[in-house]
Amino acid sequence: MKAYLIKNGTLITMDPKRRVLPGGAILVEGQRIKKVLNREEADSFSSAKPGAEIIDARGKLVLPGFVNAHGHAAMTLFRSYADDLPLMEWLEKRIWPLEESLEPEDVYWGTLLSILEMLKSGTTTFADMYFFMDEVARAVEESGIRGVLCRGMVGTGDNPGKRLKESEEFCRQWHGQGDGRITTTLGPHAPYTCPPAFLEEVLGLQKKLDVPLQIHLAETEWENSYCRETYSMSPVELVDSLNLFSAPTLAAHCVHVSPGDIEILAAQKVRVAHNPGSNLKLASGIAPLPRMLEAGVVVGLGTDGASSNNNLDMLEEIRLAALIHKGVSKDSRAVPASTALELATCGGAAAVFLEDTGSLEEGKLADLVIFKYQGVPHLTPNHNPVADIVYAAGPRDVDLVMVNGAVLLAKEQFSRLDEERILFETKKRTAALLSRAAGKAKA
Amino acid sequence: MKAYLIKNGTLITMDPKRRVLPGGAILVEGQRIKKVLNREEADSFSSAKPGAEIIDARGKLVLPGFVNAHGHAAMTLFRSYADDLPLMEWLEKRIWPLEESLEPEDVYWGTLLSILEMLKSGTTTFADMYFFMDEVARAVEESGIRGVLCRGMVGTGDNPGKRLKESEEFCRQWHGQGDGRITTTLGPHAPYTCPPAFLEEVLGLQKKLDVPLQIHLAETEWENSYCRETYSMSPVELVDSLNLFSAPTLAAHCVHVSPGDIEILAAQKVRVAHNPGSNLKLASGIAPLPRMLEAGVVVGLGTDGASSNNNLDMLEEIRLAALIHKGVSKDSRAVPASTALELATCGGAAAVFLEDTGSLEEGKLADLVIFKYQGVPHLTPNHNPVADIVYAAGPRDVDLVMVNGAVLLAKEQFSRLDEERILFETKKRTAALLSRAAGKAKA
Repeated sequence: MKAYLIKNGTLITMDPKRRVLPGGAILVEGQRIKKVLNREEADSFSSAKPGAEIIDARGKLVLPGFVNAHGHAAMTLFRSYADDLPLMEWLEKRIWPLEESLEPEDVYWGTLLSILEMLKSGTTTFADMYFFMDEVARAVEESGIRGVLCRGMVGTGDNPGKRLKESEEFCRQWHGQGDGRITTTLGPHAPYTCPPAFLEEVLGLQKKLDVPLQIHLAETEWENSYCRETYSMSPVELVDSLNLFSAPTLAAHCVHVSPGDIEILAAQKVRVAHNPGSNLKLASGIAPLPRMLEAGVVVGLGTDGASSNNNLDMLEEIRLAALIHKGVSKDSRAVPASTALELATCGGAAAVFLEDTGSLEEGKLADLVIFKYQGVPHLTPNHNPVADIVYAAGPRDVDLVMVNGAVLLAKEQFSRLDEERILFETKKRTAALLSRAAGKAKA
Repeated sequence: MKAYLIKNGTLITMDPKRRVLPGGAILVEGQRIKKVLNREEADSFSSAKPGAEIIDARGKLVLPGFVNAHGHAAMTLFRSYADDLPLMEWLEKRIWPLEESLEPEDVYWGTLLSILEMLKSGTTTFADMYFFMDEVARAVEESGIRGVLCRGMVGTGDNPGKRLKESEEFCRQWHGQGDGRITTTLGPHAPYTCPPAFLEEVLGLQKKLDVPLQIHLAETEWENSYCRETYSMSPVELVDSLNLFSAPTLAAHCVHVSPGDIEILAAQKVRVAHNPGSNLKLASGIAPLPRMLEAGVVVGLGTDGASSNNNLDMLEEIRLAALIHKGVSKDSRAVPASTALELATCGGAAAVFLEDTGSLEEGKLADLVIFKYQGVPHLTPNHNPVADIVYAAGPRDVDLVMVNGAVLLAKEQFSRLDEERILFETKKRTAALLSRAAGKAKA
């Protein structure tokens, strides 16, 4: 069994019992964290642990890897393709025509492109809702990252039953694959694209498969108006009335939630993926994060797809979460640095149903990131590692990324991915996709 | 005279007449841009320009360097020293006690630290208001960056006349130094720290020296209340009533400005430094940027000091400016990418009284940045260079920085600064500063 001893670093464990351990050490055996040691424990721990490869983290910070709790990975192909447009114009005129022309291989390469970017910025787990999900799962399996995957299901149009069937097959085929790195959920897209009868079918399938749900919820004012007009309920109330929250549920966005909605989310233990960058860029609004946290809602952070962000950098979402709620609420104590970091680590892990990750604790899965810290101008003079990570660090500071006990990125080199080939294929496929879409538009 | 020919890159000129030039070239002679060539012009331009050093920018983007229009550079020493506190508690209990213990050499090294960070993230000009300004000017002179500097003056307490005298001496000694890279202004701190009689003295000195002004203005609700209660005017109205805007003025923040205030700013040609990160972090609020731009106010972007940000990365401010106003105004077309980039380049240059910089145009000073672009995962598939810079690029993409025709940073190496020494000195001096401050607190 492969073992690593990570030594001499400052551990930001996100374990509430022992938050920051300067000069600590971590022993990884196989897929898991075997020991987390403070400085004294590390000093007396035999450095001659036979067979353990030493990783010297002197002058560096060791953190749990970030969890990207909501996104559509392959949409990296559409990064900066269409920006600064109203949501429906952006979707209907620019994004959907491209998505209609997507081929399975596009999704495979687009997902690999997203994984390059996510690993380089310290993300070790991502939640994903898209289509051609076999391709996404294949990319996760090959790359070594952890993925919480679902086929996004729209309940209208031709044959929604086919999407349920695909989802069931996807869950049966992929759940637990990749040494357990792949977990699966059902993915009803949103209350405005899935009528109640369809959501009830989804719930039936959920009971049969015993998997969680991912859904978009209360993203825009338009969605709230639509639900009120059609069902005389808010989106949260509607989904609750259908008993969907009896399943473990991850609800993305929750921008437009009333105090009553927040009570429901908390009482039903619904997890929320807060996507500050995407919500700002699409002008959806600003979710009441402080109020959700106060109510005890489990919240993670997500980037959403790269076409509405336009990047997959979790440090940026952490910073946005820490900054915007202070400005909007006029309270400089809102979402302090440590809370923002929780959202991206232990909070995100709980949000995506993986309580076995998200902190550096003995027995947990070894998903971690080492950041450069000492000797970095924009982090000097190193007064406070948590504040420095939240308010000043960037992807350039990522030194090493480990998922499931395997080193996937070190010294800017990927161990399992061919970066050049992925860049080549994604550019080639994007060009072909654009010309297919242009051809369709003419026809 | 040293000359460079930058070839094969995509030029994002910020020249409204010819915005983006793929495959363009720039000839730099001495301190200035001699030629800006599109692809055809570049192809027919003799590559055998005798003596010009070739910089191959193939697959890269060439932009004007960023202008950081407001800050307190040496406050990098306080980065992450105190966060998530109410403004007055943060200032009175944490920051001011440290500032009282600052020595001139601290400001010198702290400013050099800030210059390392600014150059690494593509900033070529910064505006600065602090004290021990000779040290700041010395750091600017030695480093090769461009600085628009003023001694921050408080008009209360002991001997405010001394600060006027220091300011005058500073302007006389330093204006135009460093081959013209140093320009000076007067720096009355704010309406709430400078009573009207003092502001009138400042204006008198301004007329004598013919230099512009930098001032903090309408940063917080508290400041507005204070001015209303004390003078029955808003901060903008108060300063206007004293005729201060008859001098070219750069007003930092302008968070709490009414439509009437905005009319005054536009009519009086007051430049505004918008500091979205600092305003959010200190919970000051969100400036009405779209309304100021609509009214024709000249706006630049600033980071403010690293203790309220906590970094000096202009790409982050560009992104915040492009994102938050969309979310707050619920208009996805607010502050489009190209506008956000203008704020940090040509807008910032106009804001800091340096219209001779801020775009890639023939005859302007050669302040520019080359960004990596092709082959960068988080910028792939390169659909739109402006959107990619604004929404996805980071300091890690900076490949080369030129100021005043001199290459200051290339391949992560500084040509004029000793990075290791600066890191060593700033850490050493910060430790000494903390122990001096602790000693004073005990005494």
